[in-house]
Amino acid sequence: MNFEEQLKAHQQRAERALDRWLPAADIEPTRLHEAMRYAVMGPGKRVRPVLVYATGQALEANLDQLDSSAAAVEFIHAYSLVHDDLPAMDNDDLRRGRPTCHRAFDEATAILAGDALQALAFRALAHDSLLQVPARRRIEMITLLADASGSLGMAGGQAIDLAAVGRKLTLAQLENMHLHKTGALIRASVQLGFMAAGGLDPDAESALDLYARCIGLAFQVHDDILDVEGATEIIGKPQGSDVDRDKPTYPNILGMAQAKATAQRLCDEAVASLAGFGPGADTLRLLASYIVKRDR
Amino acid sequence: MNFEEQLKAHQQRAERALDRWLPAADIEPTRLHEAMRYAVMGPGKRVRPVLVYATGQALEANLDQLDSSAAAVEFIHAYSLVHDDLPAMDNDDLRRGRPTCHRAFDEATAILAGDALQALAFRALAHDSLLQVPARRRIEMITLLADASGSLGMAGGQAIDLAAVGRKLTLAQLENMHLHKTGALIRASVQLGFMAAGGLDPDAESALDLYARCIGLAFQVHDDILDVEGATEIIGKPQGSDVDRDKPTYPNILGMAQAKATAQRLCDEAVASLAGFGPGADTLRLLASYIVKRDR
Repeated sequence: MNFEEQLKAHQQRAERALDRWLPAADIEPTRLHEAMRYAVMGPGKRVRPVLVYATGQALEANLDQLDSSAAAVEFIHAYSLVHDDLPAMDNDDLRRGRPTCHRAFDEATAILAGDALQALAFRALAHDSLLQVPARRRIEMITLLADASGSLGMAGGQAIDLAAVGRKLTLAQLENMHLHKTGALIRASVQLGFMAAGGLDPDAESALDLYARCIGLAFQVHDDILDVEGATEIIGKPQGSDVDRDKPTYPNILGMAQAKATAQRLCDEAVASLAGFGPGADTLRLLASYIVKRDR
Repeated sequence: MNFEEQLKAHQQRAERALDRWLPAADIEPTRLHEAMRYAVMGPGKRVRPVLVYATGQALEANLDQLDSSAAAVEFIHAYSLVHDDLPAMDNDDLRRGRPTCHRAFDEATAILAGDALQALAFRALAHDSLLQVPARRRIEMITLLADASGSLGMAGGQAIDLAAVGRKLTLAQLENMHLHKTGALIRASVQLGFMAAGGLDPDAESALDLYARCIGLAFQVHDDILDVEGATEIIGKPQGSDVDRDKPTYPNILGMAQAKATAQRLCDEAVASLAGFGPGADTLRLLASYIVKRDR
């Protein structure tokens, strides 16, 4: 399998796992379950689940072990998008080229769908019978997901982001925002992959964590670049929407050339951190490049 | 200790536990942490934590074991109130006699505070070192909380409620809504209390569960009665607000006299279900009466 095929395989595996955990759309309350499925099952890159699987691959794990972690991080990610898109937050009408959840349904349903997706993330980790790790490790995984999602992780990053609109940020402040807003969950994806795969070697764990921190930031830098250079029909949201809102971005602070150099440097650092891994880690290595080259 | 003193002791114990789990208000992002504390630490009856502790008492448990369960159910309850009060949902300005979270802060912060409180609930259960139960039981407790909170529990009940505004419901449909919206978390409070206390006897578990289902419904019937008969300054929200919105209520469907008789019957049934317990269950017994007699 080449990288594109591997990526596709992981994405499809993730979608099967998500589908398995989501209540069927004809179970009551049906409108809520439809909204949850709409929010999760639309087109998406599945970066976080792919990271879970690719980390498991690097450790030669049985991928069955990784399905609940992959689903859990994507449920958290999907709920955060639904809530971020709300009128009181970013007020976005389009997401991945389709109406946002509150546009396709209504605001109240979107709020509840996000809330229920968060609960489902924890349920997936807690209740998965395919995950054959000691109970104590599973509890550590749940704690890790809660920390990555909560006020000291992703939700906190979103709060920092809201407070930053219209303000001038230093590079350090911008980085701090992204380390929380997107970095925490990307890092958790790799950590959960490591833990679900039964990983025990602390050196491997540190190397993977450095990898995750680098690609998390690289992902965000490249997102900011796309927001300036990408076309609406490809990125699925109005081009320049961050600039319009006077949000601080890497190209704003660093200039475009320097922003691109930063993304590439982070990608190189991510790949370098995996030096101790064999060819099993090739998907992780190629993912780093994919993240700074993708056009959406 | 008489019942009022016992109730007060449990409430205060709950508040200490909540305070311990909540990040300090001066930790970044401070506005988010202030909002989380505002949503949780204001005046409240703490019915769910009190149920956790009273269940533990009935099983002669060390109450240290119960703090994280008490905090977890109250975090879930608090987040649900914050989100329910939002303009897109019930659009309430007052809660427990104070401005609602989105009024005291802003809508975006209220959405995020609710989201972060949900994560904190799972963190409390997963990470509490005082809870000395086998790891497998802790995982069952986390699963139980996720189920009680999610689309087949509380969030689902809220969706059923939204869909019911302006519609005529049968008694069975109204009961189904409340069994989800408030009943699921009240039941989870007793179940978590049982599990955290190390309870193993399935007969005791069934009896407690019947108790919880009865008082969960009794609580809601009495809430509907208060909405008609209570005064705004006591119940902390505009009197008659459910009627204004044309929400289905027990007094609407049954008439006031029958609604009151139903609340009393459920209370009696709850007490009867505890026949096999000794005086340790007196707080639970008196709580049942308290629930149908309270004036707010």
